[in-house]
Amino acid sequence: MPEQEPNLAPQNEVGLVVQQLTGAEGQAQAEVFSEILEDAEPGTVALLLEALPLDERYERWQQVEFADRVEVLSLMRADPRMGILRRMPDDEVDLLFAQLSPEDLIEWSDYLPESFTDRALAQMGERQRQHFELYNQYSENEIGRYADHQMLVLSTKATIGQAQRFFRRIELDCNDSLFLVDEEDHFRGAVSRYEVFRSNPDEPLLSLMDEDSRAISADATLMEAAELLEHSRDVELPVVDDEGGLIGRVTLRTATELVREHYEAQLMASAGMNETDDLFAPIMKGARRRAVWLGINLLTAFLASATIGLFEDVLSQVVALAVLMPIVASMGGIAGSQSLTLMIRGMAMGQISAGNLWSLMKNELGIGAVNGVLWAIVIGAVSGWWFSNEIIGIAIGCAILINMLVAAGAGVLVPMVLQKMDQDPALSGSVILTTVTDVIGFLSFLGLATILFL
Amino acid sequence: MPEQEPNLAPQNEVGLVVQQLTGAEGQAQAEVFSEILEDAEPGTVALLLEALPLDERYERWQQVEFADRVEVLSLMRADPRMGILRRMPDDEVDLLFAQLSPEDLIEWSDYLPESFTDRALAQMGERQRQHFELYNQYSENEIGRYADHQMLVLSTKATIGQAQRFFRRIELDCNDSLFLVDEEDHFRGAVSRYEVFRSNPDEPLLSLMDEDSRAISADATLMEAAELLEHSRDVELPVVDDEGGLIGRVTLRTATELVREHYEAQLMASAGMNETDDLFAPIMKGARRRAVWLGINLLTAFLASATIGLFEDVLSQVVALAVLMPIVASMGGIAGSQSLTLMIRGMAMGQISAGNLWSLMKNELGIGAVNGVLWAIVIGAVSGWWFSNEIIGIAIGCAILINMLVAAGAGVLVPMVLQKMDQDPALSGSVILTTVTDVIGFLSFLGLATILFL
Repeated sequence: MPEQEPNLAPQNEVGLVVQQLTGAEGQAQAEVFSEILEDAEPGTVALLLEALPLDERYERWQQVEFADRVEVLSLMRADPRMGILRRMPDDEVDLLFAQLSPEDLIEWSDYLPESFTDRALAQMGERQRQHFELYNQYSENEIGRYADHQMLVLSTKATIGQAQRFFRRIELDCNDSLFLVDEEDHFRGAVSRYEVFRSNPDEPLLSLMDEDSRAISADATLMEAAELLEHSRDVELPVVDDEGGLIGRVTLRTATELVREHYEAQLMASAGMNETDDLFAPIMKGARRRAVWLGINLLTAFLASATIGLFEDVLSQVVALAVLMPIVASMGGIAGSQSLTLMIRGMAMGQISAGNLWSLMKNELGIGAVNGVLWAIVIGAVSGWWFSNEIIGIAIGCAILINMLVAAGAGVLVPMVLQKMDQDPALSGSVILTTVTDVIGFLSFLGLATILFL
Repeated sequence: MPEQEPNLAPQNEVGLVVQQLTGAEGQAQAEVFSEILEDAEPGTVALLLEALPLDERYERWQQVEFADRVEVLSLMRADPRMGILRRMPDDEVDLLFAQLSPEDLIEWSDYLPESFTDRALAQMGERQRQHFELYNQYSENEIGRYADHQMLVLSTKATIGQAQRFFRRIELDCNDSLFLVDEEDHFRGAVSRYEVFRSNPDEPLLSLMDEDSRAISADATLMEAAELLEHSRDVELPVVDDEGGLIGRVTLRTATELVREHYEAQLMASAGMNETDDLFAPIMKGARRRAVWLGINLLTAFLASATIGLFEDVLSQVVALAVLMPIVASMGGIAGSQSLTLMIRGMAMGQISAGNLWSLMKNELGIGAVNGVLWAIVIGAVSGWWFSNEIIGIAIGCAILINMLVAAGAGVLVPMVLQKMDQDPALSGSVILTTVTDVIGFLSFLGLATILFL
């Protein structure tokens, strides 16, 4: 009964098919899905399956043609993918694994239990297993692991004519260049498709080679690689190992995926979750994962409570303090999160360094001082009037100013310290910052109140 | 003295040059920068300038070659770009505007004061002004506004040979297809470069046309367009207007930029800031922008305080309640942000619709119930033991359970309601959610305590 559903404007094409699909049930849903399958891209099918509760998802999954299954699964997030694999009968899983390329398995293996990886390897030929081991020597944050091994490569001795035939015959995504290697398979430079087609087929290809061709080091991080591509004028860049050996390429399409995954991971990390998380995790599993983050938060909350506990005397005498307390913590938390967010954005782009840290600190402290004074006056006046007690107004005003200055400073320093400790500021930054602003907020407000009232 | 600087591992290549540049001062910095300028891409130069405090930034800006200035400014975020424009002498600005294409001006004009846009238009020829007006009819969230107008277009009557010459002669970024139009410039279909080069030059080009070619509607949102490209197998897609007229194309490179900007905007919005914000905003300007968000937060904080204010009686008698209060609010806030974040991620990908809303709600409530019971027991036990008072333990345990269930429900509903109201859930979602969990947390905890103690 779609007429009775709220009329939610779909955000995009996926939104439209999600609406059609989730609006139907049982047999009707199966029919809608087979219609969608006729011309949907595998990426869309993957998003659709993820948008279904687990039982419906597995039923619809069975409608996906066998030939498309590896690609659809590859494009799903890791948890929903694993959920489907666990539900599939053993023989179907083995058939699927037999279709997996070493590149696919590398991507899957980041989140696959070892027993599954071993089963998949058992389905592979010796050569494919060797390939897998080759890529597997790079860690999950090194671009070498995810390099695309399909590319146009010719010897530095080839002719332009050979390159022309190559470009005509082999159809690859995001392919504007051909990579030249010497006898030892070391990357020497790239040749542009445009140059190749404009030039005389009998000339040596080397004459067109760009000596300054950029290459990405295999141990570069995923975001380094994505940024190099974004800022280059190419749609693909070669990936080379320590000795300069050509091991693959990274395309602009991969860069787009990496950027999206990076920001999705940051978004999820800000709530203590993973980018692999399923929209419909089984309840116990979802609860267990989130419990860890709640537990960490509880420790910091008890710390804040313990701080308040130091001031039971003044609280029992001036109950207004208990009423106003959350305002100090809250304003500090928001001001701190503004500085922290600016830092996290800058750090993601590599724009923050030791050299500009002090200038940033001065700027943030300046902004913190201006807003601190402004809101100290507003909150002090309102609180003093509310409880008809100017001492309360003075205490909360001073506490607000102190806390907002501390928040600005901590917002700049906490992410820098975390990065130095190889921790992700997007994950733990806000918890640490909130702890700081809570504790400082309660200490300054209740401490000042103790001095002024007792 | 780089030896004394903390050794911060740069995140990427940009990080490395930022470190070199910000580590130097005055004349030394000028020299480092001119070395960097020799082979840095304009995108890197833009990021570097943004990483400098305002005075240094403008000094370095003057070193950028005149020919590169438009591109570098185009690649900067809007606020730092505007900061530079405001500092430049009038005649230099006019010279710069004279170099601006209508496409550049469209992008700049989103954040340019009208007086500047008018000055730029005055520098343009009649034809360019018409182009500007043409693109300007699309709003800031419609892809038609940002379509790339350089593309390969031929008539449906052309031959394959003509297409081959076209592909050889014209070098464009992300270009694998040629678009065919009829006499009325209506898009009819795309032809792949690979097909063109494999086929007989004398045949009609129409024979290679893909009838099912995808096109993006000019009024599609930026994220719709980016997703269509990501999920397609193409590196470019045509953009057509209401009547099917071909108005431009969107490339995979643009899609990558749009994705990054979307997530940067979401990240910044989560702290009440803009993606255009300068890392080094002038203090008063930065303070004014952030003050709005702090003010909104203050209103919700006063709402929470008012809730506590209802329970002054019980608070003045049982001071332990004031000590424990923040724990209830904090656990609810974290649990709610987990549900909210999962929703925001799903909504960005179009995966959430009326049809799966109820299933999502059940799942989140289930997870909320499991964690609610778990942490109710833990927190209840610890609190009862801390204050040697089992009634306090019971009150806080029940409040935790209630608040975590409410948090899960609100985490699902709040972003859906905001989307229906055309509000960005990433901007206002967390403020509304925190208000809900604060108020419900204090109400349930202090309300139960009142019943049990008084």
